[in-house]
Amino acid sequence: MKAQKVSLGTMDWETFQKLDSRQKAGSFNINGRPYHVLVAQQFGRKFLEELGDLATFIRKIAKTKAGMDFLQKQLSHKAAMLYFSQPSTRTFLSFHSACQILGMHTVEVRDTSTSSEVKGETQEDSVRTFSSFADAIIMRSAIGGLAEKMAWVLSNTDRPVPIINAGSGKDQHPTQALLDIYTLRRSFEKRGGIDRKKIVFVGDLARGRTVRSLAYLLTNYDGVKQYFIAPPQLQIGKDIQDILVQAGVDFELGSDLGRHVAEADAVYMTRIQDEWDEKKGESQKIDNAKYYFTADHLRRLPAHSVIMHPLPRRLEIDIAVDRDPRAVYWRQVRNGMWIRVALLAFIFGCENSILKNSPKAGS
Amino acid sequence: MKAQKVSLGTMDWETFQKLDSRQKAGSFNINGRPYHVLVAQQFGRKFLEELGDLATFIRKIAKTKAGMDFLQKQLSHKAAMLYFSQPSTRTFLSFHSACQILGMHTVEVRDTSTSSEVKGETQEDSVRTFSSFADAIIMRSAIGGLAEKMAWVLSNTDRPVPIINAGSGKDQHPTQALLDIYTLRRSFEKRGGIDRKKIVFVGDLARGRTVRSLAYLLTNYDGVKQYFIAPPQLQIGKDIQDILVQAGVDFELGSDLGRHVAEADAVYMTRIQDEWDEKKGESQKIDNAKYYFTADHLRRLPAHSVIMHPLPRRLEIDIAVDRDPRAVYWRQVRNGMWIRVALLAFIFGCENSILKNSPKAGS
Amino acid sequence: MKAQKVSLGTMDWETFQKLDSRQKAGSFNINGRPYHVLVAQQFGRKFLEELGDLATFIRKIAKTKAGMDFLQKQLSHKAAMLYFSQPSTRTFLSFHSACQILGMHTVEVRDTSTSSEVKGETQEDSVRTFSSFADAIIMRSAIGGLAEKMAWVLSNTDRPVPIINAGSGKDQHPTQALLDIYTLRRSFEKRGGIDRKKIVFVGDLARGRTVRSLAYLLTNYDGVKQYFIAPPQLQIGKDIQDILVQAGVDFELGSDLGRHVAEADAVYMTRIQDEWDEKKGESQKIDNAKYYFTADHLRRLPAHSVIMHPLPRRLEIDIAVDRDPRAVYWRQVRNGMWIRVALLAFIFGCENSILKNSPKAGS
Repeated sequence: MKAQKVSLGTMDWETFQKLDSRQKAGSFNINGRPYHVLVAQQFGRKFLEELGDLATFIRKIAKTKAGMDFLQKQLSHKAAMLYFSQPSTRTFLSFHSACQILGMHTVEVRDTSTSSEVKGETQEDSVRTFSSFADAIIMRSAIGGLAEKMAWVLSNTDRPVPIINAGSGKDQHPTQALLDIYTLRRSFEKRGGIDRKKIVFVGDLARGRTVRSLAYLLTNYDGVKQYFIAPPQLQIGKDIQDILVQAGVDFELGSDLGRHVAEADAVYMTRIQDEWDEKKGESQKIDNAKYYFTADHLRRLPAHSVIMHPLPRRLEIDIAVDRDPRAVYWRQVRNGMWIRVALLAFIFGCENSILKNSPKAGS
Repeated sequence: MKAQKVSLGTMDWETFQKLDSRQKAGSFNINGRPYHVLVAQQFGRKFLEELGDLATFIRKIAKTKAGMDFLQKQLSHKAAMLYFSQPSTRTFLSFHSACQILGMHTVEVRDTSTSSEVKGETQEDSVRTFSSFADAIIMRSAIGGLAEKMAWVLSNTDRPVPIINAGSGKDQHPTQALLDIYTLRRSFEKRGGIDRKKIVFVGDLARGRTVRSLAYLLTNYDGVKQYFIAPPQLQIGKDIQDILVQAGVDFELGSDLGRHVAEADAVYMTRIQDEWDEKKGESQKIDNAKYYFTADHLRRLPAHSVIMHPLPRRLEIDIAVDRDPRAVYWRQVRNGMWIRVALLAFIFGCENSILKNSPKAGS
Repeated sequence: MKAQKVSLGTMDWETFQKLDSRQKAGSFNINGRPYHVLVAQQFGRKFLEELGDLATFIRKIAKTKAGMDFLQKQLSHKAAMLYFSQPSTRTFLSFHSACQILGMHTVEVRDTSTSSEVKGETQEDSVRTFSSFADAIIMRSAIGGLAEKMAWVLSNTDRPVPIINAGSGKDQHPTQALLDIYTLRRSFEKRGGIDRKKIVFVGDLARGRTVRSLAYLLTNYDGVKQYFIAPPQLQIGKDIQDILVQAGVDFELGSDLGRHVAEADAVYMTRIQDEWDEKKGESQKIDNAKYYFTADHLRRLPAHSVIMHPLPRRLEIDIAVDRDPRAVYWRQVRNGMWIRVALLAFIFGCENSILKNSPKAGS
């Protein structure tokens, strides 16, 4: 049962690093299924649908004690390391719960000041050590590309383990994109799915990695129109725009949420990520009011639409909106947990055991 | 199996907040059993006795491996969030162990600097997020009333979960009071229970929330006499005195432990809580010597009496006293764990399963 | 099943403390098996071999899900406290994983600022509290002798639990020594074991507790020659030299790795432990280059030899050496986890259950 080496073990790091995410993506999968989970680009539409279906199946099983006890037996022989050197309570809790639901043991390295790094160890040596005690490393870091680098390092050892990127620099947060796709699918379940929907992204689109990943994943669906509503200096990156152009995706840039709210199928609000400011106070000059979802917007939003937010929020959405059934951001949180359960099941190959042997399916 | 909404979901926060603890207390229970655990006032004598009996039953079961394995199956499908934004190793460990004994999964948020709070999220949003990953939130905070507020917030969502107050500001620490009542009951088991006993409280009675909660709970018993021995500026609050007067409880204020030690059934020592000092160094002016339990006091203490302390201690009790069988403060620590196990069993409704199906009861 | 009091409970601390480690060692064992694990001196050759054999047996069982599930049932009724007041990710993770493999529940106290110590509690009271919630305390501290002191404290209470020293001051790190002995045994398995091998220790031998413990344990084997290669100010302590002289062990002091590499059976590299510097910057004056394992050394190292390192490393070993099969330092990490699993099995007396009932042995 030795883990198969992914092909990224056959290329030197300098060469590999220069490839773009779409070129790299395939080498993170084995037989079309994720081994490492690093970039949104490694997921195709077929996998996105299988993953969502499994998540929905699992959350039904989990409604009974017998179902929960069944799920916890699936990966009781596996351990996950949660290596979070950048603060993130929500993503941490989501993965932690996902592991517990499948019975995986967990161990945390949250604060790097307690780590061997203070003794001058390289990051490569630290991660290789962590890999000795785990069957997967779920990592979050402020350093762009670090998760990829570590996947490369481990794929070149005798005992590789999967790396799951839980947010890496300003660039990628692939499991957030997976939960967003899952939330959109569930929201549009009775309206023909994601195809041909209008998605309006609002806020800090330059530095919010969730929007970047989601915009990419939406290219898997037909006829989706994307709107990017942001202050000019925080508009979606040229690299993403190029990808959309190449993929033949219809999109529009703008700065006025009010103009698009009445035609939106989904409004995806985001927070100004001032922790990435290059100059202190830079973000404070932005007129947030224009990127704020108000009770007035709510009145003009179609009845079948949804309002999303990756959370945490500051002032992007009026709390009066919370009680409206179209506000699905709290559901996104639960969706995120279930999609991560499904993802772990795929990585460790227990999806068929779940589908076939569950007490729910058996009865 | 959807959790029932407690009635506090039907009142706005401003109105609810102004009620006193006794008025609020009922709304934290469902059918006379705790849903949220927030204030000592929500427990009556009948429940205190059922809880203690269950704790005693469980600790017997737990003496064998078969019994421990049985207990761990009870709540293996449930997860508890331990949200401790105020340092407290003892209470944290006690709840953590209690969860483990019943098989509950746990996850911790101890240090708020790693939390989304740094990204500007409101406390309400944070707790609502936490509730997405847990079936109960056990919380400790330096902010008075915060646990109640969060219980109110969650009771107004689609997915409410119980809030268990593990210490909130200077006011309430209800599970400490439960363990103290349990310790007193066990100590006086062969002497007719708590009724008609003399309890001497010593130390910082103004700011020690354990004494405030315990003094209240003792009004459930007949003919108990309470003595409050404290420096004048740290004497028990007028609000508690009023409650005792209303309840017809006999009590006395004083400042000399020596005068009462010979007639005490229990001496309850407490630490000067200088972390609440309004002016720095304020507490250092107090003559601690008068609120110190010495070997001389021990000689004068009746043979059937007990010495209690919520711990941690500084200099309140001579360490020479530790080996005396009347010193029960280390037993209090274990009692606290078992009473919390019993409390969780009641909250999640598995008390009957434990009473009927345990290997101990079966043999 | 009340834990037997070890004899250290019958002597006062001042008297006990003055004994040397070999005199104390016996009182940490019960019937020749460890109760507390505090010093390398408490292990004899017979136990070292039984322990290694059990570790090897367990790691084979653990290769299947059935085996892992079997192991996790062994100590599912026990809880371990990991009390790490000195940073150490590697040792922490190793013990944490070892506990999980046997199904032990764990709880951590890593950062003393969240502990009751901030409220002025003594270390004795803190550890006694911890012991209330655990069946063993695994502790690491910067304070030499603290683990021994706490073992003495607990052995004088009604509810003693084993203390396992996970590194204490500059002096002892007994489980590191156990894993090193295990690694040497496995490395020399087909070459007659450890007897008559040449072991070359390199680096900071004054302050590296791993070498001190290992040098002592090697006195259990016949005809081993030890070389200590270090800058004069960081040479192995006179106390260890005296022990080797008394034990009739052949050893040599030196400062040139190059002179001994061609005849070494094992080269044990260590890091300059500048965190113990008495004057800031003291260690920076040392010419590290002389205590650095290079590609050139690798060429001159015999084919059957091994290179060890307790990790973390800084610059002691060229990373080009990592891919050589003689580099066993990553294997040491895994060996450490398995030897700790075996150690816990012995402490809690489940070694026979494992040997007799495992699915592997049964098939």
